[in-house]
Amino acid sequence: MTAFNPQLDQQGRLKHFLSTEGLNRQILSTILDYAESFAGVGDRAVKKVPLLRGKTVVNLFFEPSTRTRTTFELAAKRLSADVLNINIAASAANKGETLQDTLHTLEAMHCDMFVVRHGNSGAAHFIASQVAENIHVINAGDGSHAHPTQAMLDMFTIRRHKPDFAPLRVAIVGDIAHSRVARSEIHALNVLGVSDIRVIAPKTLLPKNIENLGVRVFHDLAEGLQDVDVITMLRLQRERIKNAVLPSEHEYFSCFGLTEKRLGVAKPDVIVMHPGPINRGIEIDSQVADGERSVILQQVSHGIAIRMAVMAMVMGSAPSEKPGEKAGGG
Amino acid sequence: MTAFNPQLDQQGRLKHFLSTEGLNRQILSTILDYAESFAGVGDRAVKKVPLLRGKTVVNLFFEPSTRTRTTFELAAKRLSADVLNINIAASAANKGETLQDTLHTLEAMHCDMFVVRHGNSGAAHFIASQVAENIHVINAGDGSHAHPTQAMLDMFTIRRHKPDFAPLRVAIVGDIAHSRVARSEIHALNVLGVSDIRVIAPKTLLPKNIENLGVRVFHDLAEGLQDVDVITMLRLQRERIKNAVLPSEHEYFSCFGLTEKRLGVAKPDVIVMHPGPINRGIEIDSQVADGERSVILQQVSHGIAIRMAVMAMVMGSAPSEKPGEKAGGG
Amino acid sequence: MTAFNPQLDQQGRLKHFLSTEGLNRQILSTILDYAESFAGVGDRAVKKVPLLRGKTVVNLFFEPSTRTRTTFELAAKRLSADVLNINIAASAANKGETLQDTLHTLEAMHCDMFVVRHGNSGAAHFIASQVAENIHVINAGDGSHAHPTQAMLDMFTIRRHKPDFAPLRVAIVGDIAHSRVARSEIHALNVLGVSDIRVIAPKTLLPKNIENLGVRVFHDLAEGLQDVDVITMLRLQRERIKNAVLPSEHEYFSCFGLTEKRLGVAKPDVIVMHPGPINRGIEIDSQVADGERSVILQQVSHGIAIRMAVMAMVMGSAPSEKPGEKAGGG
Repeated sequence: MTAFNPQLDQQGRLKHFLSTEGLNRQILSTILDYAESFAGVGDRAVKKVPLLRGKTVVNLFFEPSTRTRTTFELAAKRLSADVLNINIAASAANKGETLQDTLHTLEAMHCDMFVVRHGNSGAAHFIASQVAENIHVINAGDGSHAHPTQAMLDMFTIRRHKPDFAPLRVAIVGDIAHSRVARSEIHALNVLGVSDIRVIAPKTLLPKNIENLGVRVFHDLAEGLQDVDVITMLRLQRERIKNAVLPSEHEYFSCFGLTEKRLGVAKPDVIVMHPGPINRGIEIDSQVADGERSVILQQVSHGIAIRMAVMAMVMGSAPSEKPGEKAGGG
Repeated sequence: MTAFNPQLDQQGRLKHFLSTEGLNRQILSTILDYAESFAGVGDRAVKKVPLLRGKTVVNLFFEPSTRTRTTFELAAKRLSADVLNINIAASAANKGETLQDTLHTLEAMHCDMFVVRHGNSGAAHFIASQVAENIHVINAGDGSHAHPTQAMLDMFTIRRHKPDFAPLRVAIVGDIAHSRVARSEIHALNVLGVSDIRVIAPKTLLPKNIENLGVRVFHDLAEGLQDVDVITMLRLQRERIKNAVLPSEHEYFSCFGLTEKRLGVAKPDVIVMHPGPINRGIEIDSQVADGERSVILQQVSHGIAIRMAVMAMVMGSAPSEKPGEKAGGG
Repeated sequence: MTAFNPQLDQQGRLKHFLSTEGLNRQILSTILDYAESFAGVGDRAVKKVPLLRGKTVVNLFFEPSTRTRTTFELAAKRLSADVLNINIAASAANKGETLQDTLHTLEAMHCDMFVVRHGNSGAAHFIASQVAENIHVINAGDGSHAHPTQAMLDMFTIRRHKPDFAPLRVAIVGDIAHSRVARSEIHALNVLGVSDIRVIAPKTLLPKNIENLGVRVFHDLAEGLQDVDVITMLRLQRERIKNAVLPSEHEYFSCFGLTEKRLGVAKPDVIVMHPGPINRGIEIDSQVADGERSVILQQVSHGIAIRMAVMAMVMGSAPSEKPGEKAGGG
């Protein structure tokens, strides 16, 4: 932690959350611990804690995403923050204003946090490098680079089912090449000490040198799923088929689609994850998606808790031991 | 109440509000009583009660409607709930996600209530049949089927002017065939015991067998308005004329448009309602819309109170006797 | 103040804020004093005061503007009001509803304040003339007529740097003809007693008889900037060049663009303002925009404070002496 890390302040505390890469186990574990504390908030009668009351969170979305924007908006509101939704595509960017000027303008309005979604890899890091000291940036997905809150909600979901990361066998299946989720998840699994991380995909959907990230590569689903504890299915972008990277949806499903039968080679208590929205019958069979090994909807719930955790953590606000007693705010 | 009713829980309490059809007089009266209690909130300095603090209300709009969305958003905020506006047309529906998956995803985020507007008749019932036990669905208009909060704000407006429903003569005028408002209003008037319910429309704008709903049919405005206590004018969709169901706006107004002169055959203390937005000079003359018999703007105010009432009721939260003393939240 | 002034109530208090024209020095100074009291709120841990808790503010935007809408939304939320964003272009206006009916409908929902942005000059005054007694209208920019909150945040920025308005020399540079900012600023400067107000522009960008507003006209930048204390650069709409009102961006910049070198003739402690978003290299050089004489980002911060001040003032709510002690709400 002596080398410069754009996500940490000089005391080594999390200041931005841009990527699971380059963060140590202690920080990722603290995020998971915070999320544990917030996980109960959604079940309470008053789903609010006052930790970020009077703070302003800006959802700065350069590409549209109702689903991700909604989870961040909910997380911020349950922390009692005020939320501004700014769709940059439809705003001042059109008027020839530079990105830096847009950022500095929002800073001057005394906003506290930018939740950034952008189509270009590296956009969140760039924005974090531009903002003032007191602004915190959270990456809500940049290009095919990183989607760290998604990775952490996956880690949270895994830990709830398999408390010890070290002995786990985890498989990530599908379009690894274009997936920011896969990349962030591989980094997180490595940091948390998972011993066997596998990627399973056709060659056309694998980036070069992916082995360098510390994973084992499989091109055969049955082989790759052998004895795994956790499976993450990735969403297949239909454009891949249009662009002739893949032959057809049908053929993809027959080779890499997850069915009950194929699940048979995994551990009996395997859990099946998916970042959503799912393409039923393309990367996953409905029987699996809705089956007892699926934890897909748990992931959604955990997503709120993880986003509350990350928001609180970058702002330096720890959850109280018993958040239930501190309900209030606005 | 022994037969299965999708709007009620096992104890016979209102759980969803989908339609005025199939609810008994006691439930409709309780909605009106709750609304009475909330009606004063809009006049107070602090227009807020803390009943739904920490709850999450989702406006799930499959077709756009600024006006209706705004009233539900205001009602929810005045109950201190957090509100998410989701325009489904512009979101994950595009990504091939099924409606059920969208609903389950929102449930997993611990949302408490879905306010649904949809172009298809039956959509709100379908959604209510899909959601988890702890989710409450309110129909904000589905196709030409039902718009029960509009009907109830009309009932509330009537009761404020004519406290005894039994002896009333009520006329609904206009495009009955395509009107979810008309349908919901006819059911509500029947349940509340109104003895004389009339529909007045050209044949092309009347559904078959409308008499089966317990109404009398008139094709002549002067005849139908004879001695009525209440008139509801329906909005004429201009598409009806484009589609040649009607000859011209001018001719429609000359036969079914409400003017001061035509009002002469009604009771002297008749009230004139309209769900809005009004087409001046098409279904109603400005002199009437702005005249002393018009209660159109009162309907808008009552709409907030009714929506607060329904939201509180499905959540099992009764208003306090003196809501003024419990202001707060935020 | 005995003549009718649509912005004042019968006691001479600010009721609407439509224009800096026609308001006296005491009222403008009170707005600045209120803003001084709110300016610290943005720096506090809890950026909220409870002054407008339970009030409903409607952003009624007939033309889109993310930037201005955002500042009003933030100002309202920091006063603890509930905010409704209504994009009128996309709503009931399409359904043939008249503007008056839209306004009366929002009034009937017990909204307290309309923040109006409209493409037509005079729209805010018209709306203020239509609304009920208890509704307050704030002009967020109407056509090329007025943008009074922008003018007041400029006044606030000037006063923070140059506390005595009387001896100042202030230059406004650029497209005066189409600028609502210029017009509102000239009126405000006059009311506050600035002795030397200058406009600098090519003839094609100056309205006729602008001298009648109490300004001196310059067509030469170097001459006009001589010994000035304050410079406001106006944004150049690129349409002016397309429409052949101006020869080219390059030529405009070479004649009227503000550079470090040109700043040399002004007072050494001159401040440079711009309403944003800025066109770097067209009306202002980056070296100036980002230089030590620039107060452009301070203007943005002050914009929140001024809007809070105006909102509080029209609602009759004075800030407390020490707003820090009254934080709360939500």
